[in-house]
Amino acid sequence: MNQDKDALGKKILKLKRGKGLSWAQIASAIGYSPVWTCAACLGQMSMPVEAAEKTAALLGLSADETTLLVDIPYRGSLPTAVPTDPLIYRFYELIAVYGTTWKEMIHEEFGDGIMSAIDFDMAMERLPDPKGDRVKITMTGKFLPYRRY
Amino acid sequence: MNQDKDALGKKILKLKRGKGLSWAQIASAIGYSPVWTCAACLGQMSMPVEAAEKTAALLGLSADETTLLVDIPYRGSLPTAVPTDPLIYRFYELIAVYGTTWKEMIHEEFGDGIMSAIDFDMAMERLPDPKGDRVKITMTGKFLPYRRY
Amino acid sequence: MNQDKDALGKKILKLKRGKGLSWAQIASAIGYSPVWTCAACLGQMSMPVEAAEKTAALLGLSADETTLLVDIPYRGSLPTAVPTDPLIYRFYELIAVYGTTWKEMIHEEFGDGIMSAIDFDMAMERLPDPKGDRVKITMTGKFLPYRRY
Amino acid sequence: MNQDKDALGKKILKLKRGKGLSWAQIASAIGYSPVWTCAACLGQMSMPVEAAEKTAALLGLSADETTLLVDIPYRGSLPTAVPTDPLIYRFYELIAVYGTTWKEMIHEEFGDGIMSAIDFDMAMERLPDPKGDRVKITMTGKFLPYRRY
Amino acid sequence: MNQDKDALGKKILKLKRGKGLSWAQIASAIGYSPVWTCAACLGQMSMPVEAAEKTAALLGLSADETTLLVDIPYRGSLPTAVPTDPLIYRFYELIAVYGTTWKEMIHEEFGDGIMSAIDFDMAMERLPDPKGDRVKITMTGKFLPYRRY
Amino acid sequence: MNQDKDALGKKILKLKRGKGLSWAQIASAIGYSPVWTCAACLGQMSMPVEAAEKTAALLGLSADETTLLVDIPYRGSLPTAVPTDPLIYRFYELIAVYGTTWKEMIHEEFGDGIMSAIDFDMAMERLPDPKGDRVKITMTGKFLPYRRY
Amino acid sequence: MNQDKDALGKKILKLKRGKGLSWAQIASAIGYSPVWTCAACLGQMSMPVEAAEKTAALLGLSADETTLLVDIPYRGSLPTAVPTDPLIYRFYELIAVYGTTWKEMIHEEFGDGIMSAIDFDMAMERLPDPKGDRVKITMTGKFLPYRRY
Amino acid sequence: MNQDKDALGKKILKLKRGKGLSWAQIASAIGYSPVWTCAACLGQMSMPVEAAEKTAALLGLSADETTLLVDIPYRGSLPTAVPTDPLIYRFYELIAVYGTTWKEMIHEEFGDGIMSAIDFDMAMERLPDPKGDRVKITMTGKFLPYRRY
Amino acid sequence: MNQDKDALGKKILKLKRGKGLSWAQIASAIGYSPVWTCAACLGQMSMPVEAAEKTAALLGLSADETTLLVDIPYRGSLPTAVPTDPLIYRFYELIAVYGTTWKEMIHEEFGDGIMSAIDFDMAMERLPDPKGDRVKITMTGKFLPYRRY
Amino acid sequence: MNQDKDALGKKILKLKRGKGLSWAQIASAIGYSPVWTCAACLGQMSMPVEAAEKTAALLGLSADETTLLVDIPYRGSLPTAVPTDPLIYRFYELIAVYGTTWKEMIHEEFGDGIMSAIDFDMAMERLPDPKGDRVKITMTGKFLPYRRY
Repeated sequence: MNQDKDALGKKILKLKRGKGLSWAQIASAIGYSPVWTCAACLGQMSMPVEAAEKTAALLGLSADETTLLVDIPYRGSLPTAVPTDPLIYRFYELIAVYGTTWKEMIHEEFGDGIMSAIDFDMAMERLPDPKGDRVKITMTGKFLPYRRY
Repeated sequence: MNQDKDALGKKILKLKRGKGLSWAQIASAIGYSPVWTCAACLGQMSMPVEAAEKTAALLGLSADETTLLVDIPYRGSLPTAVPTDPLIYRFYELIAVYGTTWKEMIHEEFGDGIMSAIDFDMAMERLPDPKGDRVKITMTGKFLPYRRY
Repeated sequence: MNQDKDALGKKILKLKRGKGLSWAQIASAIGYSPVWTCAACLGQMSMPVEAAEKTAALLGLSADETTLLVDIPYRGSLPTAVPTDPLIYRFYELIAVYGTTWKEMIHEEFGDGIMSAIDFDMAMERLPDPKGDRVKITMTGKFLPYRRY
Repeated sequence: MNQDKDALGKKILKLKRGKGLSWAQIASAIGYSPVWTCAACLGQMSMPVEAAEKTAALLGLSADETTLLVDIPYRGSLPTAVPTDPLIYRFYELIAVYGTTWKEMIHEEFGDGIMSAIDFDMAMERLPDPKGDRVKITMTGKFLPYRRY
Repeated sequence: MNQDKDALGKKILKLKRGKGLSWAQIASAIGYSPVWTCAACLGQMSMPVEAAEKTAALLGLSADETTLLVDIPYRGSLPTAVPTDPLIYRFYELIAVYGTTWKEMIHEEFGDGIMSAIDFDMAMERLPDPKGDRVKITMTGKFLPYRRY
Repeated sequence: MNQDKDALGKKILKLKRGKGLSWAQIASAIGYSPVWTCAACLGQMSMPVEAAEKTAALLGLSADETTLLVDIPYRGSLPTAVPTDPLIYRFYELIAVYGTTWKEMIHEEFGDGIMSAIDFDMAMERLPDPKGDRVKITMTGKFLPYRRY
Repeated sequence: MNQDKDALGKKILKLKRGKGLSWAQIASAIGYSPVWTCAACLGQMSMPVEAAEKTAALLGLSADETTLLVDIPYRGSLPTAVPTDPLIYRFYELIAVYGTTWKEMIHEEFGDGIMSAIDFDMAMERLPDPKGDRVKITMTGKFLPYRRY
Repeated sequence: MNQDKDALGKKILKLKRGKGLSWAQIASAIGYSPVWTCAACLGQMSMPVEAAEKTAALLGLSADETTLLVDIPYRGSLPTAVPTDPLIYRFYELIAVYGTTWKEMIHEEFGDGIMSAIDFDMAMERLPDPKGDRVKITMTGKFLPYRRY
Repeated sequence: MNQDKDALGKKILKLKRGKGLSWAQIASAIGYSPVWTCAACLGQMSMPVEAAEKTAALLGLSADETTLLVDIPYRGSLPTAVPTDPLIYRFYELIAVYGTTWKEMIHEEFGDGIMSAIDFDMAMERLPDPKGDRVKITMTGKFLPYRRY
Repeated sequence: MNQDKDALGKKILKLKRGKGLSWAQIASAIGYSPVWTCAACLGQMSMPVEAAEKTAALLGLSADETTLLVDIPYRGSLPTAVPTDPLIYRFYELIAVYGTTWKEMIHEEFGDGIMSAIDFDMAMERLPDPKGDRVKITMTGKFLPYRRY
């Protein structure tokens, strides 16, 4: 299923570059945030029909491609369990280094449960810094307490 | 090397519970943030001598244990490449779902390079929400441009 | 962390056998369901203090062991990614055979999202059948829709 | 062998959407349950000839495709040993968390043996709940005692 | 769980050698076949209490060890997914070479289903042959048809 | 190399079904046993020229396909190290459960060495049984003693 | 994404051979070092537009291929986690042998942190030696201290 | 075998710290380079007897420990095939990014063959840099041409 | 890179069979040994231009194919880390059984170092034996002492 | 099982060094070849009782240790599927490079079958060479033809 989505993702990247659009501009046109819009265009989220149609209108996609944007994906965007690309690997490294810390601190504050990766949102911004600008990522996920029954 | 650090981490968790301390309190006592302090106590960061001594004083650690807090760890806190614990797995899942999105958006904003996981900081807080409180994680990492030479 | 929990789990199994108790009896004594109670005794769930104390009283556990029942576990009860034990493997096989079917049918009924494994409960019973009694497992998990933002 | 079945599965998904059919409707037309019907259409079960012909008539499949529905599949519907898709992964997580519990409880009730994944059936339904509807899965499998000889 | 069973298995091997017993003799003493008896002594089968007691009497085992023979094991006797020992590897090789053949021939004869590995028995004997004696293994397993529902 | 053999195997399965032949009939026509004939047709054995020609005549294969039946294969018929198909997996499970038993019993009877998987033959038959017919597999392999030199 | 880059890399290798160019000559033409130029042509670095145009002019590439040289790659040039090619494996072996040594010596000199693989450069040269010429590799990477916060 | 060497390595690190010695000082005392000396102390190289004795004298090691320094190790210093420690991982990343480049450039200069990892030496130094000091690593390995015979 | 070489290897095998040539004959025609010639034709060695031209003349290869014989391969001829083909697996098994023995005996005779797999040659011959002819493999590799520096 | 054999292997290595014995001397004393003797002492071969007793007499082993030399081992001497030690890895590399060549050449000479790794012997010797002495390994294994039945 993802092969079609992957191909569409690549096509959107080309169209985006050709039209000189930013993710912020596409996001604004369809009424969602840039991170989510990018994830949906790359085939990891399912667009509502209306958003898919707006995306199609903006970029010039066919009806089949519009439907593909609406399809629910088999998620998982990476070719290996441990990612090789350095930018993506750094996030994997954070899990190796901070995994037990996240566990400790979330349990201390909320008790037994997890941070949802489904009822979840994320934003990314540039943080100007004289020693070198920083990438700032803010994520919130609903705390889900483990059900005791 | 980590076995000693792991054992110390477990001991600190017990001492912390016994004394009714929070990570915020320990962090405040040693002058660092709660996330970093927790990571250091769990054996994934190296404490400066002064911080280690304050930690030892607060919790009642031996000289050997204080030295262990200063030792630079062989990092990697998890027993498997794909974590089995649900709380930690959700972060792994974020990489599978958002990995290519992070790549796209950081490259659009900053060009070729990565977000550093070394010159990096993170905070965690509770976001009150009527539909269920949320875990909020904010991370910033210095953007490192790929050197062309 | 789990090593202590595993050892306690084994001890509870021996005590349970020695006292001739069933999971239903233990569960009834602490006020939870048999499946959850068994999972908690085997170290995969965290007991509320009161339940841990009742368990300790029933089985004769020490204060340290009672605390261990309350501790939040690093979950994951199996030694290999693909389980070797035939009883447990059959559940893994169900994922291989029915994984895409679950995905299709949950998406058809609920749209994009997942069945929670956290806000989740399960029961197991014997279904008498003249051709051979059957194991009946009933599970319910809250549907969590993927957040679009 | 599965590549042909996979392609047919995708085609059926498109035809189903085009005709506005539900799995319950297809199931009802061929005389089997929705879960089994969906699994068979996705290539994980072998249809009896009559059911395959009814499916073909309903959806408009060729004679070759009808035969393909009857073929016994090389089962296993997922591209990786640990599934990456979050919906399917949650079931894998249940094995990690509840695997030893299933083992304990089935052995307590039935003695040494397993729950069959072959003489097995399953149903899925929506459980209305004011706090959020729930996915309810009911499965029964024949208990198979280990033969002592 | 298996560590105890493994240790007991090793002890039984020593006792067996010390007493000059064969598997056939032990099997005959407890009323089961040699293959099953050997598997049970090595910790992969659960003995009925009576058989365990006879085994204990014959070999001189303690009450705890007798109970251990009755315990239902977490099955899986090998340290790696692909066995390294040449004798055992040859059986793995048979799967690689004959796996699809078994599938074809069982399906041709019986239709869709499997040969049970639970309702299963096996015998091993020496087949005298002038070109070199042969190992003869005979196994029978109940055919389990896939349930259509 | 196997890709060609796999394609030919699939073609033979179709031809066999179209002509209503059984493996026993094909085997009888070429003068070998059904199990070996099936394995050879599925690309895991190399046919002698005469047998390949008889197979080709019976099924209607081209000269190139006849040669392909004679080619010595790169053996290994399964896509993963641990097979996902339930019928084939059960044989893998037998290794996990009985691996050490085979080792013990063959060594007891024959001394140090292995059962050959090369000088090996196998037969499969249906064993009528009122409680459900059984699959009977009989295999013999030459015992090969470890050479001491 | 890399498939296109890989194909372009192969094409460049042929063009380079056809024109009798060395990496040093290509590097000199575009104003970068030979190692970096080679890495960029093989699809592991992103060229600035001007360098891509010079490369295209020198080798005779199309506009699409020039753009491809500018695209930021999904990095990772090897088909397996442990490389099979002997030349490349030797570098992997150096990690196995010298990994802990690098860690010790960099920490001794610089404290806690890493050598950047992003702000990094490398050169390779032939070191004449009467006992056999040597490959000399010189690499420098910025030391990045672990941030304490 | 390595467990003893690992334990000795840890002990040497403690002794070194206790005596305030640098690797350069130890190296100088035994007549080898700092990198090689460090690797030998960490158990990845075999010391000549004389060097082992000098090391023992300097640090205060026993006769057994001195012998252990002379023993040829089973090399491989890391617990996982893909290292988790960020400092060491960066070297693994270099292989992923530069592996094919090393291959291309060494073959261009030397023809078919490899850089030896056995007839190999390495040095590490601090490269002062106003933008942040750099780690400089210089390695030379004998070129070994593939033998054609 | 290897895909082209693999395809050429298959073509050469067909041409060789069609012309009734042996490896010894091809080897003799190009002036190298049979083992090396076979390895080069199968894409694991790089032929000198003259040998490639002789091979091409003998078998009837195109200019592109001749160049391909000269290209230095990305070595590694097997699809899995542990080979499934029984003939090749037996060599892997030798490593599992004799690996530590080779290490012991080479170190005893030569000291610390390795047998080169680059400055290496091998021959294979038939050893007539009344109990069954034997495969004889003779390999010599230059001993490379570990450099101490 | 191997843990005991491994420990005995290590002890023998120490005794051998202490007594200044060579493998050739031990081999000569027990009447087997050096390679086989070394493999048996390292726990990968089972010694006949007489040889074990001679080994014990020569080295000073206990009765239990003598029995252990006779025990048939669970073979497999290496901690990882792909060996990390450079000396042993080179043999693994030979499989990657020469695996398909061995297959081709043995099949050309002998037809379909394998070289036995059980009815197998090996010798190792030093081949003086002015350019550097060579390790010479000679192995012979009985050819086993694939049985057609």
